[in-house]
Parts: sequence; structure tokens; C-alpha cells
Amino acid sequence: MDSLKEEKNLEESLYERALKVLPGGISRNVIFRQPHPHYVASAHGCYVEDVNGITRIDFVNNIASLVHGHAHPAIVKAVYEQLQKGTAYSMGTEAEIRHAETLCHRVPGFEKIRFMNSGTEAVMSLIKASRAYTGKHKIAKAEGAYHGSYDFAEVSESASPDNWGPVEQPNSVPHVRNTPPSVLDEVIVFPYNDVERTLAILDRHADEIACVLIDPVPHRIGMIRATDEFVEAVYDWTRKHNTLMAFDEVVCFRINYEGAQALYRVKPDLTALGKLIGGGFPVGALTGKAEIMDVLNPLQTPLRFSLSGTFSANPITMTAGRVAVEMFDKQAVDKVNHLAQEAKEQLMQAAKIAGIPLSVAGAGSMMKMHFRETLPSNYRECYEDANHKKTVNTFLDFMYDHGIILVYSNSCFFSTVMKQEHIDKLSETALEGFKFIKPLLNV
Amino acid sequence: MDSLKEEKNLEESLYERALKVLPGGISRNVIFRQPHPHYVASAHGCYVEDVNGITRIDFVNNIASLVHGHAHPAIVKAVYEQLQKGTAYSMGTEAEIRHAETLCHRVPGFEKIRFMNSGTEAVMSLIKASRAYTGKHKIAKAEGAYHGSYDFAEVSESASPDNWGPVEQPNSVPHVRNTPPSVLDEVIVFPYNDVERTLAILDRHADEIACVLIDPVPHRIGMIRATDEFVEAVYDWTRKHNTLMAFDEVVCFRINYEGAQALYRVKPDLTALGKLIGGGFPVGALTGKAEIMDVLNPLQTPLRFSLSGTFSANPITMTAGRVAVEMFDKQAVDKVNHLAQEAKEQLMQAAKIAGIPLSVAGAGSMMKMHFRETLPSNYRECYEDANHKKTVNTFLDFMYDHGIILVYSNSCFFSTVMKQEHIDKLSETALEGFKFIKPLLNV
Repeated sequence: MDSLKEEKNLEESLYERALKVLPGGISRNVIFRQPHPHYVASAHGCYVEDVNGITRIDFVNNIASLVHGHAHPAIVKAVYEQLQKGTAYSMGTEAEIRHAETLCHRVPGFEKIRFMNSGTEAVMSLIKASRAYTGKHKIAKAEGAYHGSYDFAEVSESASPDNWGPVEQPNSVPHVRNTPPSVLDEVIVFPYNDVERTLAILDRHADEIACVLIDPVPHRIGMIRATDEFVEAVYDWTRKHNTLMAFDEVVCFRINYEGAQALYRVKPDLTALGKLIGGGFPVGALTGKAEIMDVLNPLQTPLRFSLSGTFSANPITMTAGRVAVEMFDKQAVDKVNHLAQEAKEQLMQAAKIAGIPLSVAGAGSMMKMHFRETLPSNYRECYEDANHKKTVNTFLDFMYDHGIILVYSNSCFFSTVMKQEHIDKLSETALEGFKFIKPLLNV
Repeated sequence: MDSLKEEKNLEESLYERALKVLPGGISRNVIFRQPHPHYVASAHGCYVEDVNGITRIDFVNNIASLVHGHAHPAIVKAVYEQLQKGTAYSMGTEAEIRHAETLCHRVPGFEKIRFMNSGTEAVMSLIKASRAYTGKHKIAKAEGAYHGSYDFAEVSESASPDNWGPVEQPNSVPHVRNTPPSVLDEVIVFPYNDVERTLAILDRHADEIACVLIDPVPHRIGMIRATDEFVEAVYDWTRKHNTLMAFDEVVCFRINYEGAQALYRVKPDLTALGKLIGGGFPVGALTGKAEIMDVLNPLQTPLRFSLSGTFSANPITMTAGRVAVEMFDKQAVDKVNHLAQEAKEQLMQAAKIAGIPLSVAGAGSMMKMHFRETLPSNYRECYEDANHKKTVNTFLDFMYDHGIILVYSNSCFFSTVMKQEHIDKLSETALEGFKFIKPLLNV
């Protein structure tokens, strides 16, 4: 108890300083906790040490971005070499070419690529490229899907029963207060994985849609995989209507050697990337068919989509990212995916022992626990009321206090440096956590 | 000549590879050159070595972002220490608090701050915060001003005589093809530094404007400083109409210890930052009055502007940025500004000797050469036809071939590691360059 008290005091004093200079004392909403955020001193592999010297196993990996865990020696070494040669220039580097080659040679649909600084910038560029290529202005996206902070992309990401409207025609719900109505009008919202209703909605805007944007394993739609039927139906629709099919693989690229798109018979025209391809440094990328990517090509006149970016493709990100992607070879992907599968089975087993309802969504090296018997299949079914969220938070706090860091969404993003012992610790701790929250689940 | 030929071959072979995987062979339009971009091998201080081992003096410093030049030992050391402890977490760090304190303690108007990954994200957040705070949707910006890649911010940044319309009411000109007309409608464009016309335009939209966005030393409006009269008139107007006055200091924060806003009697409500405050790593920030910044505060219900960002406030950027800002103390600012002033005088002298027209715009440690007798005062006067651009490019190529790297806009961003000898080399080389292009200037 002494160490716990000390911890509170150290973190509290940091938070007091933070409150004076950062709105709400935080730099990212994802780290917000009450009574205060937690603070890291250092991290290595799958371990994070907080400012009080307490070490925990990290299943967050900065929201999926650190596929090899923290401070991987190969990345540290490569970055340090580049660091001594400079971090950013106003000229080209071989580093950007090598990383582009690594990604384009890896996935057949990645014919050309352009790097940016974040997933938000990647999706923004994807939408601007879609408009520039098709000559149309609107986009279509799934209700509840998160695609970064570009206004058009974030419409309806936080829709709730109060405002989401009829499922046959979901409202375009602003995420940020006073989003211009004109932005809402440019976004068509469809119910994820609902083929019939989605096609009916798309049909009503057949001539207006530049791209249909899909995250095939959407973190905020319960990590429920898009069905083959859904993706193929959308693909077929887009072929008939001069519309691009675009995947947001910023998070889910990690699930397969060739990304989530490897799961489907039909492939997206454009893909947004981020997270893992930066090797722990700020990154985003837009990739896809060469003919479409050429809207960015300054050799073509008139240039349709002029884009710079002071730090885009900087050699630190390019070097760290390339090393991370190269190390994430087929064997590494298989290994971490197998570990995640093992974790899933152990967690299901633990839930059975504890006597609580559990279903686990996700794919590859990402998973999300739902405290319910069967998986939800769309955003509205996933939607959790305040009471349920409180129960999840109680579970997350229990896990944190017992040495396990999970994602706020009750999810895990595994890393390649994890071993069976970490999975065992996860499921053993979860068993205790399940028992702890059982009274709250009314079972 | 042999070395020149070899250089071409090495850079050509990189470019051939690049063309296969990057649209137009580039990752940023700013590095585009014909017949091919130039490629860096390494950089130290104010020197950049290309892939052929040729060293040049760098007056670009990655478009103003490296205020201490390349690979500054103090930044390399601090970053390497952090690198070994991890580059990005899903929890808070003292690094973000320290950098926030450094900036907020430096400039009176920086009451609270939020970090992002780029200047583009900073301006996007600035505009979203302005809407959320004021309840209004439109923004007003200067014709020709560059504010990053957010659609609303880039309207009319590349307006030309073909499409810019009457100066009394400049058109909202799309920058990217097929920018939605609804976006253009949300942006009011005014003629920079033209008090009377600007106020008349603002008056026509008195109830609709969330913020008036001004870069007080706009790189792409000839680096002409906003007049006191103009800034004060805009400020007074915003006070009467529940509108925010916002400064884009992503580039020009470097001109003064307290940024460009130190030059004016009236201060902006919000400021976008980037470039130098990242110490060479991807960065952006939104700062300003605490009451307005609190739209981002998750302790307030309902949260008006929810914003995350996987790499925002990552400890590498925060550490490098803090060290860079700390080293850019009053003495360092004075020194580099003095050096820039010296350069300006030497360049004017060289132009006089060469017998070409020259006027030099800019402030503090940034300057832009105009091949004309008197400075332009607005975007339309700055606008250069294709012929003039060709002359500028001939000059830039001459300088590059003789060991001096300038910005594509015929500008210099000086760094604190430069000395008189580098300024002398700049003006001596420029003298030869001026003579070389004199026949093209028709003087």
C-alpha cells in the first residue's frame, strides 16, 4: 500500500504541473484517466516502467503502432545511425526510396506510395486523392468507424442512440462541436456489414461518391471483421459507379503479411497506412493503384493534388519504419498471430472458469474482449451504455493495478517480442479480473 | 566536370528507383527538381553532404525547421537517451509537460498548449477549435497565404490571375482539384495588408467568421510582414464580432524570442506552431488563451473538441523540441537575427555591384530575395510569371552548383550554428549568381 500511495503522489504532482499548461492536463485524449493519467519513465520490449518504478506488461503498444514492442535494439541502432546524420532535410534521401520499395514489394496492391506524418494525414490525403481522381466530392463511411481527425473522416464516429437516426439512413453526426453542416452533407453514413441497407444508401447517392472508406477490422466497431460478402458487395457497387473502394489499414495492416486486404478476394483501390510502418515514429502513408496515386505526380500537368509536408518521409521515420516492416516478416507475423490466438483461447477459458460471458473479436495480432455471450455485428450492437463502460473501466483498472496494461477499449495489440509467459500472465490476471467484475455484470 | 557527371549518375539512379514506387519519384513536392531531385547522404551543422560526397552550405534548414542546423550534438544526445527508453507510449510523460512549460513560460499569450504531428494538423486544430468556441463555421484568410494541407486552410493559396477575381472580393480558389464547393464557401479570402478592402469583406460576413487567420510574415506572400495597422484593424474587427484572431507562426515563430506576435501591440487569441519547436522531428502545436484552449479539455462536459493522435506529444519530439527551444534563448535569437541582417546588407551590396535590382523581405532569421527595386506589398504584386520563375530557378541552380542551398522561393532560413564566414560565402556566391542571371532580368 505504501508503494501505491507513493505512486499516486508522484503521478499527481506531474498531473498538477500538466494541468497548468495542457488543456485538461493531457496531450492526447487516449491517455486521459481519472483522477489522473499514468506516466511512463521508460519502456523496453513488452515492459513499461512508470515514474514510480513499477513495471507492467504492455498490451497497448501505443495503440497498435509498436509491433515489435518498445525500444527494439535493431530499431534503436538504425535510428541512432541516422540521427547522427540529421533528422530532416529539404532534399530526397535513399531512406524514403528503400521504405517505399519495402512496402510496394510486399503487397501487390501497393503500386505507389506517398508518406505523411500521421494516420489522420493519410486518410485526409486518401479522401482528397479520391475527389481529385473521380471528380466527385462526397465520401461514404461506416457509422462508428474511426479514421482520424479530418472532419469528413470523423463524421458519425461517436454517433449515439440520441442522434444516430434510422438505421436505413443513419444521420451524419458531428464529432466536434460546430462541425460545419456543409461537411456533414459531404459524408454518407452506412451501417457496417449490412449489405442490403448499405447498397440502398449508396444507390441514393450513386453519382456523388468519390470513395467508400472501410476499415476491415474497425477498432471502434468492436473489432468485428468486415464480412467477405460486405466487402465484395461494396466493391461491385463501386465498379459500377466510378467510385473508389478505399481501405483504412492504419491499425489493421498488422493482421497479415500483406495487410487486412489479403483476406479478401477483391482489393481496395487506395489504402491508408500508419502506426506500425513508422517503427515507433510519426507516420502515415497513402498507397494504391499507380494510376490513382499519380494525382500526386508533379510530372503530370496540371498537377491535380499538390502536397508537401515539412516532416513527411523524414529519414528517421523512414529508417525506423523500414527496419520494423522488414523484421515483421512472414515468420514474425505468424508467430505473433499464433500468440494472439493462444491468448484468445486462454481468455475464453478463464471466462468460463469465472462464469462470466465473454466473446473475443479481432484478427491477427489484435483482439477485443466483449463481456457478452455472442459477438456484436455492427456499431449499434457494439454501443455500450455508461454502466457497461464503467464495468469495463473497473476491469481495466484491476488489470493495470495487477501489472497488465490494456487498451481503453478492452483490447490488446500484441507485439512480436511477447512470449507464452506474457500470455499466461494476461490470462491468469484476467481470470482474477473477471471474478472481480462478475458482480457488476449481473450474471 | 567529372564529379558533376558522376553526381548526375548517382542521383539519376536513385531517382529511377524512386519513380517506380513514389508518384513522380518524390515524397514531398518541395524537393521536386528537374531532371531529378537532389539526394542527401548526411548533414552536420550548416553543411549538407549529397550522395556524391559534395558538401554545400544549407540555408533551407528543412524549410525553417532546423533553427540550430543539422544533427546538433545537444539534440542528438538528448534524443539518443530517450530513444533507449522508447519513442512512443499510450501514457503520459514528463517530456510533454516540460516542453509545454518551456513554451508557455516563454510567450505570455501561450497560456495552454496541445501538441500534434505537423503544422497541417496544428492549423486544422486551430480552425476546429475556433468553430467549437465561437459557434461559427467560416474562416477568413489572406489570398496566397500557405497554412498547410487542410482543405479549408489551403483555399486560394495558389490563386492566379486567371482565377483570383476582383481584389475587392477575391474568389475562393481551390488548391486541389475537386475541392468540394462547400469547402470553398466556408472560406472568406481577403487581400493581405489591405485594411480597407479586408474590413469591407469581413463586414459582409460579420456573423459567420469563426477566426481570421494571419501569418504575420507569410513565406508565400513574398515574406512581407503584416503591417501594424493591418493587424490592429483586424484585431479590432474581431473584438466587435465574436471572432478569434489567429496567427500561423509555424514558420515565423523563429523571428523573435516571443515569436512574431511580439512585434504587435495586439495579440492573437490562438497561435499555430510547428517546425522549430520539434527540434528536427515531426511536430505541430495549437496554443493560446486558456479559456479557448479548454474546448479540448476532457474534464469539461460535454467535451467540445475530442482529439487524440497516436504520435502526438511523443517523447522524442518533445525532448528534441524542448532542447531546441531552450537553446534558442534571447542571445541565440539576437545572434542569428543579426547574422541575417548582415547577410541582407551584403546581398544588397552585391546586387548593387552586379547592377541588378534587388529588394529583400523577411524578418529576424528569415529573408527572401526579390529581383525588383522595391518590395511588393501583397500577393498579387508578388505573383511571379513563368518567365520570372525561370530566372529565379536559374539563380537557384547556379547557387546550388556553387555550394549554396537556398529555398525554392529564393529565401534563406538561417541557423544559429552559422558564422560570418558562411554569410560571406553566401554573398560572394550570390554576386556571381547575380551577374550570371543579369542578362535574363532585362536590366
